[in-house]
Amino acid sequence: MSSFLGELIGTMMLILFGGGVVGGVVLNKSKAQDSGWIVITMGWGFAVAFAVYMVGKYSGAHINPAVTIGLASIGLFPWAQVPMYIVAQMIGAFIGATLVWLHYHPHWAETEDKDAKLAVFSTGPAIKSPLANLFSEVLGTAILVFGLLGIGANKFSEGLNPLIVGFFIVAIGLSLGGTTGYAINPARDLGPRIAHFFLPIAGKRDSDWSYAWIPVVGPVLGGVIGAFLYKGLVM
Amino acid sequence: MSSFLGELIGTMMLILFGGGVVGGVVLNKSKAQDSGWIVITMGWGFAVAFAVYMVGKYSGAHINPAVTIGLASIGLFPWAQVPMYIVAQMIGAFIGATLVWLHYHPHWAETEDKDAKLAVFSTGPAIKSPLANLFSEVLGTAILVFGLLGIGANKFSEGLNPLIVGFFIVAIGLSLGGTTGYAINPARDLGPRIAHFFLPIAGKRDSDWSYAWIPVVGPVLGGVIGAFLYKGLVM
Amino acid sequence: MSSFLGELIGTMMLILFGGGVVGGVVLNKSKAQDSGWIVITMGWGFAVAFAVYMVGKYSGAHINPAVTIGLASIGLFPWAQVPMYIVAQMIGAFIGATLVWLHYHPHWAETEDKDAKLAVFSTGPAIKSPLANLFSEVLGTAILVFGLLGIGANKFSEGLNPLIVGFFIVAIGLSLGGTTGYAINPARDLGPRIAHFFLPIAGKRDSDWSYAWIPVVGPVLGGVIGAFLYKGLVM
Amino acid sequence: MSSFLGELIGTMMLILFGGGVVGGVVLNKSKAQDSGWIVITMGWGFAVAFAVYMVGKYSGAHINPAVTIGLASIGLFPWAQVPMYIVAQMIGAFIGATLVWLHYHPHWAETEDKDAKLAVFSTGPAIKSPLANLFSEVLGTAILVFGLLGIGANKFSEGLNPLIVGFFIVAIGLSLGGTTGYAINPARDLGPRIAHFFLPIAGKRDSDWSYAWIPVVGPVLGGVIGAFLYKGLVM
Repeated sequence: MSSFLGELIGTMMLILFGGGVVGGVVLNKSKAQDSGWIVITMGWGFAVAFAVYMVGKYSGAHINPAVTIGLASIGLFPWAQVPMYIVAQMIGAFIGATLVWLHYHPHWAETEDKDAKLAVFSTGPAIKSPLANLFSEVLGTAILVFGLLGIGANKFSEGLNPLIVGFFIVAIGLSLGGTTGYAINPARDLGPRIAHFFLPIAGKRDSDWSYAWIPVVGPVLGGVIGAFLYKGLVM
Repeated sequence: MSSFLGELIGTMMLILFGGGVVGGVVLNKSKAQDSGWIVITMGWGFAVAFAVYMVGKYSGAHINPAVTIGLASIGLFPWAQVPMYIVAQMIGAFIGATLVWLHYHPHWAETEDKDAKLAVFSTGPAIKSPLANLFSEVLGTAILVFGLLGIGANKFSEGLNPLIVGFFIVAIGLSLGGTTGYAINPARDLGPRIAHFFLPIAGKRDSDWSYAWIPVVGPVLGGVIGAFLYKGLVM
Repeated sequence: MSSFLGELIGTMMLILFGGGVVGGVVLNKSKAQDSGWIVITMGWGFAVAFAVYMVGKYSGAHINPAVTIGLASIGLFPWAQVPMYIVAQMIGAFIGATLVWLHYHPHWAETEDKDAKLAVFSTGPAIKSPLANLFSEVLGTAILVFGLLGIGANKFSEGLNPLIVGFFIVAIGLSLGGTTGYAINPARDLGPRIAHFFLPIAGKRDSDWSYAWIPVVGPVLGGVIGAFLYKGLVM
Repeated sequence: MSSFLGELIGTMMLILFGGGVVGGVVLNKSKAQDSGWIVITMGWGFAVAFAVYMVGKYSGAHINPAVTIGLASIGLFPWAQVPMYIVAQMIGAFIGATLVWLHYHPHWAETEDKDAKLAVFSTGPAIKSPLANLFSEVLGTAILVFGLLGIGANKFSEGLNPLIVGFFIVAIGLSLGGTTGYAINPARDLGPRIAHFFLPIAGKRDSDWSYAWIPVVGPVLGGVIGAFLYKGLVM
């Protein structure tokens, strides 16, 4: 499998499982409705773990432009491949979001809460406050990249590492997710937001483009900061 | 142990633990009543994990006709053994469901909700919509077989792999289970449904045969699609 | 460490953590109050896991007379040592229960529900029905011993096995615990029941001796059945 | 990385994740609000696990003066380095608490419950009773140090051990945390309490200095007792 296809399939699985768990918790009549934060955070954690299991050996399973750019910024990934990785991640996220839409097809019309329907695709802030929200995304992604490098640089797809990476995502969600919903990944947020915009979702609201820059800029900034902190303090 | 006995015991354990956790959550007066989706999904995940631990080295622990047929369809399992495996899986599922019935014996009469009692045995849709329900089962099982092959082809009974396979089932449940209850396994659904039909369960409803074809056809279709996707994209 | 001390310390840790988690969930004013079945089952699972980590290499970490007798019944443990193991397990369980009582000292007087206070020490049936309750304990313990032998005979204290054994206990709790509270261990139930009888617990009820035989006889019977099933089907 | 920096970064991560999860559960408008004890205990467990992954190879990842002093008291860590370790742990805890304050910046003003805001930083007793509270902290920390030594002396940062250590923290939280909130670590409690005192948190209460000695004295005492029990019984 090419690294392009690896990133595409990995990010597709990430969004299928990650968007899927949000859909299960927030959409009306779902058997998982209102099952809470432990379900959300474990769902996203396993989403990452199994995406890494699936494509780690083909592309390194970044499945996140903030990781790709962070690694490149300290010389651990070639800049020349960064655009190709990001394109694959965005396409994968779009396809994943489309599968989530199909999977819950009869549930959209049954759900009146339009914010909940957007939440299946993209993050939103608990309290709208651009600077604080940006800080939360920067902090979450800095810790993500710093931690991924600490657990084992580029080798996090070997052995049981995908599971450990998944638990790390659970940890970030449990501890830091309550403020902005921990996008910590531009593709995870922007890809499905574009899908939300284009898909004929029953009774949808606008795609909240005014907030869309925060879960893109924050994670990229955070990823670079986390990588440089790791380089300065550990490498 | 013969592979026939392995599949039988493995599927029996799957249904004893899987039906057991649903019984605990939905039956009246159970100490686990209303303990929610995290309990359901972890219960089924561990059900698979420990069935694989128990019989993986004897039969490969398919414990699922959709896995058996999926593997056969891409040449990873001999077609000649497929019928024997499916027979063993169906018998095991029937025995497991009977043990669940016995285990909760005084609880059936205490539970008025007849749909809940059927749910201990077989899946049902959150919103009845045959095409959408079929799609959910196809998607869930395609990801299941694609993922199992990705984690390690036929070797998923070695080392810690049973636990990882169990967490993968947890992931599918968390993220995709809210729509149809993720049968993703014809034996898991049809075997206990037959048991529900024959067992003298106190105050039971009919066994909802009109829905029964979906968690059989969907998983078989999905298993073959997942296997071919893996063959085409990865192998 | 002698195997006697190993069993004593292991069973003490089992009851300190196991009784502790029930106390946290059921006693008034506890920060963990009403946190539900996932907390109970994970608490007991980790109780077993860390007892095995602690003493596995010294005594094999049976920490359960039903396991000791089950292993002895198929020749995997010397009968001559069985009484010594059971004595150690009972003493450890008594000490563990005493520590639980001390740990929650101000909470007993704050809790009016006398059944809840007994539940911190011993199990009780969801629906009183001796034959059905006995069946539940036999089934749970038969699966426990059958599964422990399947995961790896006497070697379940090596490597990551203690964690896997702990998850197996979580699985049994999630799937089969709702009926009788899954004693599946005579020392786990009788030792703390004796402690409940003797300790000056504020506002306690009687120790429900009429039920006490079921979580002793059921587990011993189940342990032997599970061991013989393993011997007949697998060994 | 120096061992000083290791302890500082490890304890900073511990408090960022640990204080973070409490903030998520108790602060108003957080997406994780009221998600319960399983979230709290898993959050703190993963906080420890990933702090150990991050800095275990540089400092041994004590991230807890009670562990440092306990190890020193039985000759497994040089007394001469104890003050330096404790200083690093306290600085790290203060920085971690400051990051938590910034992360939840708009949430402080939205939360009226001043006790909840203090709880993000420091522990408090479920029922105020100095002797019983002290006993709970001694017991919890004695088991912590006894268990850490049992799992593998100073080697708990190797391989999968950080995850096992994290699950051990989950276990202590589930089973013993309901009484005093399981500080079991003077730096975890005192460092953030000092931060709570100095930071301009919107609508904060006093920092409850009358209780502050218990989560310092109790853990130190417990750590030494646990270490000596291990030395006497196991080494």
